[in-house]
Order: sequence, then structure tokens, then C-alpha cells
Amino acid sequence: MEIQKYLSEQKERVETALKHYIPAPVVPFTRHIESMRYSVFAGGKRIRPILCLAAAETIRAKGEIGDSLLPVACALECIHTYSLIHDDLPAMDNDELRRGKPTNHVLYGEAEAILAGDGLLTLAFELITTDDGQGLSAVQRLDIAQIIARAAGSFGMVGGQFLDIANENSQYPFEMLQMIHRRKTGALITASVQAGAIAAGACADDSRALSVYGDEIGLAFQIVDDLLNATSTTEKLGKAAGSDETMGKATYPGYFGIDETRKKAQEATARAKEALCTYGENAEPLRSLAEYLFKRTY
Amino acid sequence: MEIQKYLSEQKERVETALKHYIPAPVVPFTRHIESMRYSVFAGGKRIRPILCLAAAETIRAKGEIGDSLLPVACALECIHTYSLIHDDLPAMDNDELRRGKPTNHVLYGEAEAILAGDGLLTLAFELITTDDGQGLSAVQRLDIAQIIARAAGSFGMVGGQFLDIANENSQYPFEMLQMIHRRKTGALITASVQAGAIAAGACADDSRALSVYGDEIGLAFQIVDDLLNATSTTEKLGKAAGSDETMGKATYPGYFGIDETRKKAQEATARAKEALCTYGENAEPLRSLAEYLFKRTY
Repeated sequence: MEIQKYLSEQKERVETALKHYIPAPVVPFTRHIESMRYSVFAGGKRIRPILCLAAAETIRAKGEIGDSLLPVACALECIHTYSLIHDDLPAMDNDELRRGKPTNHVLYGEAEAILAGDGLLTLAFELITTDDGQGLSAVQRLDIAQIIARAAGSFGMVGGQFLDIANENSQYPFEMLQMIHRRKTGALITASVQAGAIAAGACADDSRALSVYGDEIGLAFQIVDDLLNATSTTEKLGKAAGSDETMGKATYPGYFGIDETRKKAQEATARAKEALCTYGENAEPLRSLAEYLFKRTY
Repeated sequence: MEIQKYLSEQKERVETALKHYIPAPVVPFTRHIESMRYSVFAGGKRIRPILCLAAAETIRAKGEIGDSLLPVACALECIHTYSLIHDDLPAMDNDELRRGKPTNHVLYGEAEAILAGDGLLTLAFELITTDDGQGLSAVQRLDIAQIIARAAGSFGMVGGQFLDIANENSQYPFEMLQMIHRRKTGALITASVQAGAIAAGACADDSRALSVYGDEIGLAFQIVDDLLNATSTTEKLGKAAGSDETMGKATYPGYFGIDETRKKAQEATARAKEALCTYGENAEPLRSLAEYLFKRTY
């Protein structure tokens, strides 16, 4: 499978939808909408939306799902983007660079950045809950909204960010690192896959298999992030390299060294692919995505 | 009707539900959950949840609605509380006092306050979209979630706060003041009433009448807020009195003077009550609430 071609096609689909679903700048809200659009269109890889679409295609053949999932896919990107904007704030991680560009608050100011995040998080739930007559049932929309809300909330992504900040500059056990990773990054990735599964009418075994897949690529994703932060350059990453060490954050390389860390990412990727063993060719996109996320260099 | 008795009964109902729906502090998220609970239980009047319940009772007789609306009522309070926490941040209105107590960031720090707000906003949508088997249908939940998301989002409450901040210390026309009031405060108040109407199975005329009621009390509420800020004391308000003038904010008293402003609040209250003319005794709680909101002194 040509993963690069698949990714660029899906990315274009998602970005066309994002342009449609995120409102155009309009007086007197121009600057607010512009600040939201700035971060949404700052060059994200659209991993979560693509995972959501690919999970649905794994269960139902491509085409059948059509565009009915696009609002949900866009909602996932809105939530991801809001979390980056808030995480970058001076009171949080205080990052000035993201995807090679100034972070939202550097360009628009702190108040605007907080509101851009709030606006995107709220828009996400508006997108999921709006019946656009495109095929998702009310029960499916509700289930998807609930799973995403849980994954994004106080015991998911927000909780992970809380733990990350609360434990900065402190030595903590490996279990805490795992917990932070799982919540801060893993939860929304797993929810992206689960949302796709729900939309495709997954049975219990489908849900289980795809959840394992989501958990394992979420883990691999974060391990690779740790690796890149330790081994890459700011120029390549588009954000501050080496920042984990500077900020005294616990990381996989800190616990296991570079080689062993790379091996752990590879093992998680293998477990993710193994979880899809019953799906044959339909799961090729998800398998290739797992491989791609492991091998990415930024 | 004894409005004080009604209010204290409904308030207790809402607070019992809030204690149930907002998670208990649990390791390792203790401080995050505590910071959310601190602001939720800092002495709010629970106006929005009570409006939501009372609107439903106006259309269906009390009792029939039962407790099915309580998760939605609590979600409204979560959204209101999140908006206060974020509005009080140093980068926004920079308020240190709210309801006579230190604001969230003063007590827990800025990062925690941002995350407390994010957690509460996300929890709100989890509450609305979770099927608790208490009688609201999937379509009702979806409609309610969508109406609340719109009212809270970039063209509602978040947009109002954006306009408020963007126009600080600048002279702007009265139309802009109206627009800020309507979005920053009015939108969520109207949505509270509309959510109750949806839960009660409102017909088109019910929805129209209750929306007019919501818009008018939202207007009256904000006019009275302006009045109190100009005429009351910090001690009585539990937040900084006179802050509008200090911060150069446009207000109703600034445009019309105290007496004319009071008259405008009274007129809006009268229009709110007039909108309920067909509902007889069932609408007594909403009428009394309108009167109470007009006459409040803090």
C-alpha cells in the first residue's frame, strides 16, 4: 500500500472539510476566527481525523461510509488543536514555536489564544451533535460525542496535561510516565479510532480489536515523540527539540536509553498491527498508518 | 408564589446533582478535581440550571419531568463556571475576587485554572450526551447539546468575551454593547430556557415564546449587572464593584444614566413576562424568576 498517497488524499479530504466547518472570519469576530484558523491550518498531519476515517473503512468497505464521518473527523482535529494552543500558553508549557511557526499566543496574545482554544473545543461538540442528514444516527452521534468527551476530559487529555504540569521537574516512577502518556496523547487517539468504529456499526469484537490498535499506536506515538524530542533538531521538528530534558520531564529515553526506547515503540507498533489480524485487506490503511507513525521523523 | 422558597428548593436539587455529577477528587487528579469543585461550589445562584428546570415545568406539569433534566442543568452550570474561571484569568479580566472568594487562578495557579475550565467545559458535553436511561431521547439530547454548544461557542459566549476584551478601553456604539451583552451573557441564558423546552417536548409556539422570554431576561440580567457594578459595593457584590468604569468598559448606565437604565431593565422584565401570557399558573416560576433577577441586589 502506498501510504504517502493514502495520507495525502485523506489529508486533503479532511482539510477541505475543515475549511468548510470552521467558520470564515466575519466582522466583528474576525480576529477570533482568524486565530482559530491560524492554528488549525498551521500544518498539522491530521493523524486523528485520518485514523477515524481509516477505522471506519476497516469495518465497512470504503465508499459506504462516504462523507458522513467528516464532521466527527474535523471535531477531533479541533480538539487536538485546542489542546495544543492551551498547552503552549505561558502558564502551561510556554512554547513559542509549533510546527515551525509562532504559537497562537505569540501571534494573537494570551487572551485570544485562550478563547481560540475554548472556541475550538466548543465547536467540536457542535460539529458532532449537529444532524447534517448525512447518515449517522442520533444514537451514533451521541455515543461518539460521549466517547470523545471522556477521552478529552479530566480523566483523559485534560487530566494528562494536569499530571504533566503537576509533575514537572520531579522524579516520578515509570508508571506515572505511562499514565501521563496514555491520557495526554493516547486517550484521544484511541477515541478517534473508536469514533470511526461506532460510525461503521462496529460489533463488540470490532470495538475491542480497534481499541487495542488505538491504545498501542497511541503508546508508540508518544514514545516516538519522546525519541524525536531527544534526538532531532528544532529545525526538523518545528518545535523546540531537547525541551523535555531542559524542562526536567521524565521520558522513555530517560528511563531506557535511545535503543531500548526505539525497540519499545517497534513492539507497540507490532502489537497494534497484530490486533487487526482478522481484517485482511480492509485494514491495510490502519496497518500502514501504524508503520508510518513509528517511522516518522518529525 | 414564594420565589425564595422555590429558588432554595431548586438550588438544593441542582447542588445535590452537581455533587453527584462532578467527580470526587481522586489520586493523582486530586488538585485538578478540587480546583473544578472549588469554583463550582463557590456559591453560585444556579440561575441557569433553575431556568432550565422551570422552563420544562412551564410546558409539562411539575413532576412529569422528574430528574431527567438534571444532567443538562448541571452541564449549564459547568459551562457557566468554566466561563467565569477563564474570564477571571490575568490575561483576560484579571479578577482576583469572585463571589467574595479568591478566584480560581489566585488559589490554584494559572495553569490549573485553565485546565479546570477546560475540564468543566468538556464535562458539560459528557453529561449531556451520556444516556443515563432517565427519559430524554437521543434526539432530544442531541438537540440540547447542539443548542448549548452554539450558545457557548464562537458566535455566542466565547464570541461575546472576545468582543468584550477586544473593545476594552475603546469608545464604541451602543449596538456593540448590546451585541456583547447578548452573546456574553444572554446566549447561554436563552439556551438554558430552550434546553428545558426541548426536554419537555415543546411545540414551535412554545419554543418561540420561551426564546423571547430567555432573550428578555438575559438582557435584563446584564443591564442589572451593569447597574450593580456602578452602584453597589465590592462587599455586597463579592466581586470588584466599579470595575467597569475603571476598565473603561461601555455600560448601560454609561449610555443612559442610572434611572433610565433601571427603567430599561424593568421594561425587558415586563416583556419577558408578557411572552408567557398563554401559560397560566405553570409559568409562575418563570415569571417570578424574571422579577427576582430584576430585583436582585448582588
